[in-house]
Amino acid sequence: MRTLIVYAHPEPTSLNGSLKDLAVTTLEGAGHEVRVSDLYAMRWKAVVDGDDFGVHASNPLQIARSSGQAFDSGALTPDVIAEQEKLLWAETIIFQFPLWWYSMPAILKGWVDRVFSFHFAYGVGEHSDTKYGERFGEGALTGRRALLSVTTGGPQSHYSARGINGPIDDLLFPFQHGILYYPGIEVLPPFVVYGADRMSSDEYPGLADKFTEKLLTLESTDPIAFRPQNFGDYDIPSLRVKDGLESNGRTGFGLHIKH
Amino acid sequence: MRTLIVYAHPEPTSLNGSLKDLAVTTLEGAGHEVRVSDLYAMRWKAVVDGDDFGVHASNPLQIARSSGQAFDSGALTPDVIAEQEKLLWAETIIFQFPLWWYSMPAILKGWVDRVFSFHFAYGVGEHSDTKYGERFGEGALTGRRALLSVTTGGPQSHYSARGINGPIDDLLFPFQHGILYYPGIEVLPPFVVYGADRMSSDEYPGLADKFTEKLLTLESTDPIAFRPQNFGDYDIPSLRVKDGLESNGRTGFGLHIKH
Repeated sequence: MRTLIVYAHPEPTSLNGSLKDLAVTTLEGAGHEVRVSDLYAMRWKAVVDGDDFGVHASNPLQIARSSGQAFDSGALTPDVIAEQEKLLWAETIIFQFPLWWYSMPAILKGWVDRVFSFHFAYGVGEHSDTKYGERFGEGALTGRRALLSVTTGGPQSHYSARGINGPIDDLLFPFQHGILYYPGIEVLPPFVVYGADRMSSDEYPGLADKFTEKLLTLESTDPIAFRPQNFGDYDIPSLRVKDGLESNGRTGFGLHIKH
Repeated sequence: MRTLIVYAHPEPTSLNGSLKDLAVTTLEGAGHEVRVSDLYAMRWKAVVDGDDFGVHASNPLQIARSSGQAFDSGALTPDVIAEQEKLLWAETIIFQFPLWWYSMPAILKGWVDRVFSFHFAYGVGEHSDTKYGERFGEGALTGRRALLSVTTGGPQSHYSARGINGPIDDLLFPFQHGILYYPGIEVLPPFVVYGADRMSSDEYPGLADKFTEKLLTLESTDPIAFRPQNFGDYDIPSLRVKDGLESNGRTGFGLHIKH
């Protein structure tokens, strides 16, 4: 199994750093190939701008159009091309990051904004009466699976069904469904460490055992059953879930998961 | 009314740039004071790292602790201090940005990650049997109101209750509730422009009229009725919404809005 780990934390000895290191040693120990994109160590450029597209930067700048033209010409910047190649190489992608203000750190959002270019991650496939492009279950990254490995400051109850922060599955939905499932990646249930700031070193061995078990069962774990876009569950082009498909009284983000 | 506009788009002549300009002229024309944080023009540093905290950067680096100590000592970097002062000066804050991959652009997330420091935006107030810090309705920015003015690539149906992207209110919840309401800012219903990439110039005057009306009624618009944390709706410290408070069968993020 070829695994890419995208890691976003500035401190190598942090809990996030330790979990990233554990993932590398565990997976390599099990005979897998592992590559790591350590965004802080790489000094990853977080901000999309015209410099990303060279001579293909339109004036006035249109991000989608310019990124698509640069992608088509192989003219995106070397850092972006390298990440796209890693994604195409990988069978599994693990994202290791802390939840900051209920979403990913800016440096990781900037990895998405720049690497998921037009014609690579979106703007792919035909539009017709039965298809609305290749997305949400189809696309350039089909056949891959991803895992979010996330730490939070707050305790689990704050992220529960009735918790003040909102349910963790809903907070992660824009990443898991909107970013990863969009270009075709299947998404495994996340590994979430709650209360990371208050964790004692005594608790780490138990946590490491749990993460190790998760890592060693990546290939046999069922992904989240998001509904694919072009196979009958949605009206096209409105892309509303067809009436009658909801189950368990689900609404909102939960409607897009099959039961 | 003192208004801060935080604007995140690289192209001044874009739809986002035009809406930002319209907000400035409309509000100034109505006699209000306006300041703009044009993040791209300012070359805003998007990534939190030890450089943000000077001598207060701990080794190993702990972001919350270091940012709190630097804040307490007035030793955060000048760019961050300037934004915190603008937030304290403002009565209304408008965020003008495109939705990229279902959330804000990295440069704007980096504004949040760096400006909303420990002891300024979080880690404030006492914990007791009846309070869990001053947050979600209380905090340093109480008395202010905010408006998200957002453009999306996709059409409105994709962001509707049954739409494939998820309901727009849920996509904006982590920003509106988790980031803005957290330090006490009241949040107005958002101004959303759908299908921005396919909009023709013929449609702009009608859109500008709608946005102008929104801008001129900011002071008289009711904010979203998020539940305050410390006034009886939540069990403390689990911070679960108490049983029986849900209405209209709401679940998930919607539970945290009163009806």
